[in-house]
Amino acid sequence: MLKCTSCGREYSLRKPYQRCECGEPLELELFKSTPGIGRRVWERFSGFFPFELNLELSLGEGDTLLTKAKKLSKELGVKLYLKNETLNPTWSFKDRGTYLGIHRALQLGFKKIGTVSTGNMAASVAAYGARAGLETYVLVSSDIAEEKLKALALYGARIIKVQGDYGELYYKSLKIGREKGIYFINSDDPFRVEGYKSMSFEIIEEVTPDYVVVPTSSGGLFRGIVKGFLELKESELIERLPCFVVVQAEGCSPICKTFNEGKEKIERFESPHTIAHAIENPYPPSGNAVLRLLKELRGLCVTVSDEEILDAQRDLGREGLFVQPASATGIAAIKKLRGRGIIEEEAKVVSILTGAGLKTLSHVALSTIEECSLGTLGECFP
Amino acid sequence: MLKCTSCGREYSLRKPYQRCECGEPLELELFKSTPGIGRRVWERFSGFFPFELNLELSLGEGDTLLTKAKKLSKELGVKLYLKNETLNPTWSFKDRGTYLGIHRALQLGFKKIGTVSTGNMAASVAAYGARAGLETYVLVSSDIAEEKLKALALYGARIIKVQGDYGELYYKSLKIGREKGIYFINSDDPFRVEGYKSMSFEIIEEVTPDYVVVPTSSGGLFRGIVKGFLELKESELIERLPCFVVVQAEGCSPICKTFNEGKEKIERFESPHTIAHAIENPYPPSGNAVLRLLKELRGLCVTVSDEEILDAQRDLGREGLFVQPASATGIAAIKKLRGRGIIEEEAKVVSILTGAGLKTLSHVALSTIEECSLGTLGECFP
Repeated sequence: MLKCTSCGREYSLRKPYQRCECGEPLELELFKSTPGIGRRVWERFSGFFPFELNLELSLGEGDTLLTKAKKLSKELGVKLYLKNETLNPTWSFKDRGTYLGIHRALQLGFKKIGTVSTGNMAASVAAYGARAGLETYVLVSSDIAEEKLKALALYGARIIKVQGDYGELYYKSLKIGREKGIYFINSDDPFRVEGYKSMSFEIIEEVTPDYVVVPTSSGGLFRGIVKGFLELKESELIERLPCFVVVQAEGCSPICKTFNEGKEKIERFESPHTIAHAIENPYPPSGNAVLRLLKELRGLCVTVSDEEILDAQRDLGREGLFVQPASATGIAAIKKLRGRGIIEEEAKVVSILTGAGLKTLSHVALSTIEECSLGTLGECFP
Repeated sequence: MLKCTSCGREYSLRKPYQRCECGEPLELELFKSTPGIGRRVWERFSGFFPFELNLELSLGEGDTLLTKAKKLSKELGVKLYLKNETLNPTWSFKDRGTYLGIHRALQLGFKKIGTVSTGNMAASVAAYGARAGLETYVLVSSDIAEEKLKALALYGARIIKVQGDYGELYYKSLKIGREKGIYFINSDDPFRVEGYKSMSFEIIEEVTPDYVVVPTSSGGLFRGIVKGFLELKESELIERLPCFVVVQAEGCSPICKTFNEGKEKIERFESPHTIAHAIENPYPPSGNAVLRLLKELRGLCVTVSDEEILDAQRDLGREGLFVQPASATGIAAIKKLRGRGIIEEEAKVVSILTGAGLKTLSHVALSTIEECSLGTLGECFP
């Protein structure tokens, strides 16, 4: 049964419902179960997923490493763990959600899938669509950077550039999907949320965090991580929930703006502009759902500037991890929260590194590079 | 004890020997052991590595998925398994070797490390150097593409562009390393070879292959994979070795050229030119060692054209995997060997996908991309 995250109205699982008539996103019930054994998170936590998972559809998503940050832990006086989602098959966390979404599309008998995305999700849906042998449509905004198009070209999806408002395209795609028999696995699809839960399960296998920090755009990832922890608590596998932290870029922070103003409904963020393109959604479709969770669970909402983001990206590079700017926002937020004394010393903090830095090479500034000749190479070293 | 792969001369492990006085690469003895339990290959196969491995230095390398190729298996009439090394922390197989190499540098007391590379290995050594807190030098050729420099900029290594012959730079760097106290973890370092073994162990946990196909440049990867299987056989964990296949690009195939001409010593390949830059080494430092293994174990050496490589890259995209051109050479080789009837029907074939396609976006051709407006979007779908 799918249930509205706002009004509670229920919808049958036999039809491709994704959003409530009231406009808010739908969600599955909390699953209660016991973990088992298995190499893959999908096997160990099989009782927490809404259907049997077919490993033939998998490209190796999930079971990413939680890396202890050495330098940053010391500098910030916390125990910082980095959930490295760049280790996924298309090098972002999106693959976990796409994997579940593909199952849902096949369960409902769809032969075609699609998505609306400017980057990570486009590549992910194109890859899993290819794997499953489904006809795949990727709708992108007309100003998409060439490097992002190239990152999905090889999967063989049909790519369509769409002129017009990107937020509206989300809703329009769902409508066209119903008409044309295409299952659009968009950012906060209920089954995508089910896939993201797997991150919480893996985290808890390694550490019991005090804080979990989540770069947030549409809200789908945040909802998934929270749902995972709620299920762990319902299943009596953890005693208490961590404090959940939403991070947004200052230049596009519709959720934090609404939350900090104490309002109930997300308003469109005007003139969004940030280097963290992967979280630049001015009108997040799960924004209200995230607000409700933040209030209910006493979460935090933090914004960070582009300068702070780029600093944090360099910090992560010094740990040996190269992430895209959106993924570095969590580190910038933790610095800020430590500076304000909100995160206590020695707290166990998990930050989600959402996607690989290779995807956003055009942002990388090249510092001075030395030049030497082979003959005089010895002189170039101290 | 390190032993020359050619003349058998022995060298103490207490000094940073990497090559024999006769010019050929050194190698450790074959390890015999029994696998144990553990999440990481480094734990399960700990008895096969030359020292205790420190997981604090790890960035999550290894334990990559072996993906069954669905479409290609059917088309080629074999059971094709893809060892997806793009799932590593810097998105190539190099991380396994660098992880071992870092241990070796620390064991010998080095505070500085370095490498000579044009891409994958540069990023890998820069990342692990950052992780371990070592001063890191990356020597690159002066005509390196900007996207490759950007892929390593964030790790904070000292990058030095060197004018002059790239093959000579390999030997020169080892000399400078000895003088300046820098451990150069170059392509076929004996401990790098120890790291690559881990791939063989993981493969055998999932399938007993008839063929293992390896894109080959310096020869370090091939030596590592063969050594892994030899150790599995010595340890009585497998009954017979697979047939090992070296693949090179037609435009730079010094090993295949020498092998097919029945000669004993690699000669420099003149005017190398291929789209598979990651395997474009005209004078491979482990070339003679690879030749010896090919003869002794009755391996195969196959060359493939740039056109065949790009076709194979597209084939892999249709499986949901986006690899760099060098990684697609294995598929092109398998097609060729099947066409000639050399690989038998239903054979179990493993192909190593060495690195991520995101690293070589500049090669990707964009096919026609459709354009639509939001208002008339419905008309763009069949």
